[in-house]
Amino acid sequence: MKNFMDDNFLLNNDVAIRLFHECAKDLPIIDYHCHIDAKEIAENKEFKNITELWLGGDHYKWRFMRAAGIDEYYITGDASDKDKFIKWIEALTYAIGNPLYHWSHMELKKYFGFEGHVTKECTEHLWDTCNKVIQSGHFKAKDIINMSNVKVLCTTDDPVDSLEYHDIIKEDSSFSCKVLPAFRPDNAMNIEKEAYLEYITRLENVSKIKIDSFDSLIDALKSRIAFFDSMGCRLADHGIWYIPFSDCNEEKANEIFEKRIKGELPNPVECDIFQKTFLVKLHEEYKRLGWVSQLHYGCKRDNNTKMYEKIGPNTGYDAISRIACEDSLAGLLDCLNTKNALGKIIVYSLNPNANEAIDTICACFQDGKCVNKIQHGSAWWFNDHQLGMTSHLKSLASNGNLAGFVGMLTDSRSFVSYTRHEYFRRILCNLLGEMVERGEFPDDYDILSKIVKDISYNNAVTYFNF
Amino acid sequence: MKNFMDDNFLLNNDVAIRLFHECAKDLPIIDYHCHIDAKEIAENKEFKNITELWLGGDHYKWRFMRAAGIDEYYITGDASDKDKFIKWIEALTYAIGNPLYHWSHMELKKYFGFEGHVTKECTEHLWDTCNKVIQSGHFKAKDIINMSNVKVLCTTDDPVDSLEYHDIIKEDSSFSCKVLPAFRPDNAMNIEKEAYLEYITRLENVSKIKIDSFDSLIDALKSRIAFFDSMGCRLADHGIWYIPFSDCNEEKANEIFEKRIKGELPNPVECDIFQKTFLVKLHEEYKRLGWVSQLHYGCKRDNNTKMYEKIGPNTGYDAISRIACEDSLAGLLDCLNTKNALGKIIVYSLNPNANEAIDTICACFQDGKCVNKIQHGSAWWFNDHQLGMTSHLKSLASNGNLAGFVGMLTDSRSFVSYTRHEYFRRILCNLLGEMVERGEFPDDYDILSKIVKDISYNNAVTYFNF
Amino acid sequence: MKNFMDDNFLLNNDVAIRLFHECAKDLPIIDYHCHIDAKEIAENKEFKNITELWLGGDHYKWRFMRAAGIDEYYITGDASDKDKFIKWIEALTYAIGNPLYHWSHMELKKYFGFEGHVTKECTEHLWDTCNKVIQSGHFKAKDIINMSNVKVLCTTDDPVDSLEYHDIIKEDSSFSCKVLPAFRPDNAMNIEKEAYLEYITRLENVSKIKIDSFDSLIDALKSRIAFFDSMGCRLADHGIWYIPFSDCNEEKANEIFEKRIKGELPNPVECDIFQKTFLVKLHEEYKRLGWVSQLHYGCKRDNNTKMYEKIGPNTGYDAISRIACEDSLAGLLDCLNTKNALGKIIVYSLNPNANEAIDTICACFQDGKCVNKIQHGSAWWFNDHQLGMTSHLKSLASNGNLAGFVGMLTDSRSFVSYTRHEYFRRILCNLLGEMVERGEFPDDYDILSKIVKDISYNNAVTYFNF
Repeated sequence: MKNFMDDNFLLNNDVAIRLFHECAKDLPIIDYHCHIDAKEIAENKEFKNITELWLGGDHYKWRFMRAAGIDEYYITGDASDKDKFIKWIEALTYAIGNPLYHWSHMELKKYFGFEGHVTKECTEHLWDTCNKVIQSGHFKAKDIINMSNVKVLCTTDDPVDSLEYHDIIKEDSSFSCKVLPAFRPDNAMNIEKEAYLEYITRLENVSKIKIDSFDSLIDALKSRIAFFDSMGCRLADHGIWYIPFSDCNEEKANEIFEKRIKGELPNPVECDIFQKTFLVKLHEEYKRLGWVSQLHYGCKRDNNTKMYEKIGPNTGYDAISRIACEDSLAGLLDCLNTKNALGKIIVYSLNPNANEAIDTICACFQDGKCVNKIQHGSAWWFNDHQLGMTSHLKSLASNGNLAGFVGMLTDSRSFVSYTRHEYFRRILCNLLGEMVERGEFPDDYDILSKIVKDISYNNAVTYFNF
Repeated sequence: MKNFMDDNFLLNNDVAIRLFHECAKDLPIIDYHCHIDAKEIAENKEFKNITELWLGGDHYKWRFMRAAGIDEYYITGDASDKDKFIKWIEALTYAIGNPLYHWSHMELKKYFGFEGHVTKECTEHLWDTCNKVIQSGHFKAKDIINMSNVKVLCTTDDPVDSLEYHDIIKEDSSFSCKVLPAFRPDNAMNIEKEAYLEYITRLENVSKIKIDSFDSLIDALKSRIAFFDSMGCRLADHGIWYIPFSDCNEEKANEIFEKRIKGELPNPVECDIFQKTFLVKLHEEYKRLGWVSQLHYGCKRDNNTKMYEKIGPNTGYDAISRIACEDSLAGLLDCLNTKNALGKIIVYSLNPNANEAIDTICACFQDGKCVNKIQHGSAWWFNDHQLGMTSHLKSLASNGNLAGFVGMLTDSRSFVSYTRHEYFRRILCNLLGEMVERGEFPDDYDILSKIVKDISYNNAVTYFNF
Repeated sequence: MKNFMDDNFLLNNDVAIRLFHECAKDLPIIDYHCHIDAKEIAENKEFKNITELWLGGDHYKWRFMRAAGIDEYYITGDASDKDKFIKWIEALTYAIGNPLYHWSHMELKKYFGFEGHVTKECTEHLWDTCNKVIQSGHFKAKDIINMSNVKVLCTTDDPVDSLEYHDIIKEDSSFSCKVLPAFRPDNAMNIEKEAYLEYITRLENVSKIKIDSFDSLIDALKSRIAFFDSMGCRLADHGIWYIPFSDCNEEKANEIFEKRIKGELPNPVECDIFQKTFLVKLHEEYKRLGWVSQLHYGCKRDNNTKMYEKIGPNTGYDAISRIACEDSLAGLLDCLNTKNALGKIIVYSLNPNANEAIDTICACFQDGKCVNKIQHGSAWWFNDHQLGMTSHLKSLASNGNLAGFVGMLTDSRSFVSYTRHEYFRRILCNLLGEMVERGEFPDDYDILSKIVKDISYNNAVTYFNF
């Protein structure tokens, strides 16, 4: 029996152990997609206690607590921080097989030096130990990023964002991590939302471009893209329920937009046409600037209306959609390619059962201009665990070029989630090591170490060109 | 090499062996969903021979025999019982990897003391050995239930059922197993069926409520629900092809029902509206009474018209549907929740590729009022094997709260299928043991044994509150 | 650690080792579905060098090279054969986990005696070694087929094909492999294609039947079927995007066809009706002649319009479709069955997530007249690797009769792809061996060896009856 989560956690063979410790462990982190608030870095946020750090905004944990039968009062309600922590540890104690179990223990070990496993009995000890570190004055936002060896960190930002905090961060020459914005224009695309016109007004004000047509909407966004680019932005990101199936049609997009500004809500097919055209027009610009675009699709959000009305979005009520839109994904990529607008794209699907289809579609649009120009992004959100990562990596290897994979990201709003890069690297090394141990790949250290280093770090350097 | 199906069958590590033998093996069985006929228990059915017991109504076996090239004459035809048994053993001998291989050998071992493996050569010996036990006078329905350590057994009953046999069973104070009805109103929901109006008449007669509208249909069903409740019923069950996507609409449901009683068949969209509204109205009542509802969806039934016309339903011609209706499942649960009608629900999907989506949807409706209020039900029907159970358990663990899982059921019309609970418990213990052996979960016996006992038995006690 | 791809490659337990070496390894090959050009066999094609042999038409390799960042110039462009080879070896060196890695090394070992693993350093050596063999005069098409122990080889042929090369091959009495045609009438079914009418004219000319209606189209095809049958053909094959959902309707099919010959393109629903009726009519004929029909569905082809226009079809731009048409597959089989037109059919789906549904549907149409009358075909195309084959075999075993499986085919246009049969047999033996090692199946050599030999060879002999 292996010891619980020791140095060789997830490394179940000698090749994996060597690859991880010699090649992967000490490489810096490029966290090219996360949801950390730049303001919290700029202001070098200090946390009150382990409850704020761990449970402040982490809807992964909230969901689990609800399933464990814990009342909302102890989750997003008015219970004391200590009581919330006690309830969380109760739930975590039995969270066998859930990634939260591993993530939490990795964080406890790395940031707080706790080597055991949580039980009811150690709650008090944990509370004290963690808070001592957190309140030491050496555990501010930038401290955590530094001790996590993060070299580049990309936030996720709305086109109307001033990026003022990114500027402030840059001014601190003692802080070596590059914090760059990423461009996420979902609010400009979600034409069916009630608050859409308000948003358009904000975009008008920020861009100083009158938006009275689809064309001028795109112009306004292009001006923001130019601004983001000047701030070092290298990535766009789109969060979409499903990939639109309609043909790109600027004339119709203009008609639909004009109806919308008169207050008329588009029907689902009109939304689809609008969004397809929107995506195409923006990707033309991304391509021109050499940006990487990310497509995050397949999430059915805010499924619990009652709780949405009570505590809003991003509170643990999202799910994997089963809309099978990969045939439309092929259509979108082909449309971009035909218009010479197909740049680097990372495709993330929330449905793990789409992995194989996605890998075969990506392969149809590789053009030899760079390694894995179209990437199948790292196992996303609800797949962010051993099972999901392994399934993603195996599908990518079987149907594509694993060695060219751009690797892991945190996708998190937490400052202590960098251990997920370590988690990923361990799983990767173990998978490669298994192949070698079974004689399915040669025990050639030069080749293997290059593959591990590339996926863990170097591919991201080359691909994004920050 | 491990011995064939010995005491440590499916237990491939020391932790698993200890957990199964010390914690799981001897716990009683709560079989909260099966298709046993209460009459057969009430009358304490005695079987003629192993053919009647094994092949009398078991369409799992029939399907396999057909695939093995055996003529229908030896399956549902007029061949002698002995000849049928000979053919079945011929087929079973080569059934490598099929759950029937394991189930049959577990049953042979547990009930008939046969420890080897079937071959053509041992057919005669098996025939004699099994029949000797079956004809001993100590192998009647109640005997089998007793020796299987079944504490609660829920049958599946139509609203028009008199439940008279449940009454008779209760009167036998020497029989300690609780046999309770479960309410399955499919016949009242399947408005598109030819025989629908005949069924409505039967429901009218039994409920003594005139059914001339959707509202009075629901009233009649509520009166039956009250009757079932008085008989100890704690579960409803719905067998549906796919989850309806329409909005709940009582007005339209009334219109559609009125057309139907005039003899007009509804179109598919009308069926969908009717069924959605039907489900919502009944779930309001289930919630009020604290019942658990089960949704069994995703089965495309009676695919072979020729054989359906010849030998009827439930004869081995059903299949997994690929209609991806999980987005509608989220819609149904949200609708119920908004109406304060979301009680405990167990969701079973026949498509194993929906596991991850289902787990993330269930998680959106946990409300902390009880552990896993919305359950992802045990791997159902065509998934009732190592592969299917393991995939279900891993998905549940990765995306939900495995420790709160309500556990296994037989879903069977066979009296000797209780070994499937043992099968499940072995697979569960092995999975947990593997995690511990690899250092992915601590070797903490208190925690592990609680998890195993809860999933094997205690969670069902708490969840159903029989 | 096992040695890299030695004699026990993929055989990770003693039972597997014995089964493969004693039972599977030396059995001949029945390659009942491939895309080899009969002309190349008839003319006993000699290859120029390893580049022509390996990279001449192999779009699997082309796709991988594009993903690896290699310019099209070195793939389908004008680079020298040697430069193309150098680039391919560069890509292959890092192709960890991709089936091309294994296939290529198996081919290097079997046909060229190369036992190591490829690296940049050995490129020159490989180039010389392989070319020496290829240019030896003993490595012509028939030589390769002979040394691969192929007993039957079925090509894939259009109804208008004269099959003259099959005749020529037959005349060479020194060549013992049976080379038979297979009937693939896709061009006659794809009514929506621009070139459809041209094709109909060719079919008219060849069949000498005037085609002015759907009925006469079917008559013309029947005359070609009779011709193919006279040439020893035993298999038909249909490549379809998805399984049509409409009812079979000869009247409408006639109307649609008549519009088409007037130049009017059918809409998607009309296409669907036409294709469903087309499939049914042809299957009636296949059934009458005792042919086996193959349904290859679920491929979304020619996704990259730009490259399609540049280099045409079958150049590496196809993908797995996510259209879930298995409910329609059940409908098609039921329609055939009702019309007494359901003969032997092999169903291949490109989406591995449909495996379980397909297996349960096949089981609904087994009729005991032969073993696995409806077969779930071997893991196809993008699934033709360890992961895909294992998943296919496990699903088939869990939901059907694995022992009756008709086994492997190459589906390839390459003369050195026969090692894929070895690849499959190793994976099969390993899977069975694992079950035995874990005590899940008895260590009964008689039963096991029969199963291995049947799936590797004997089932195909019985099923196709060449």
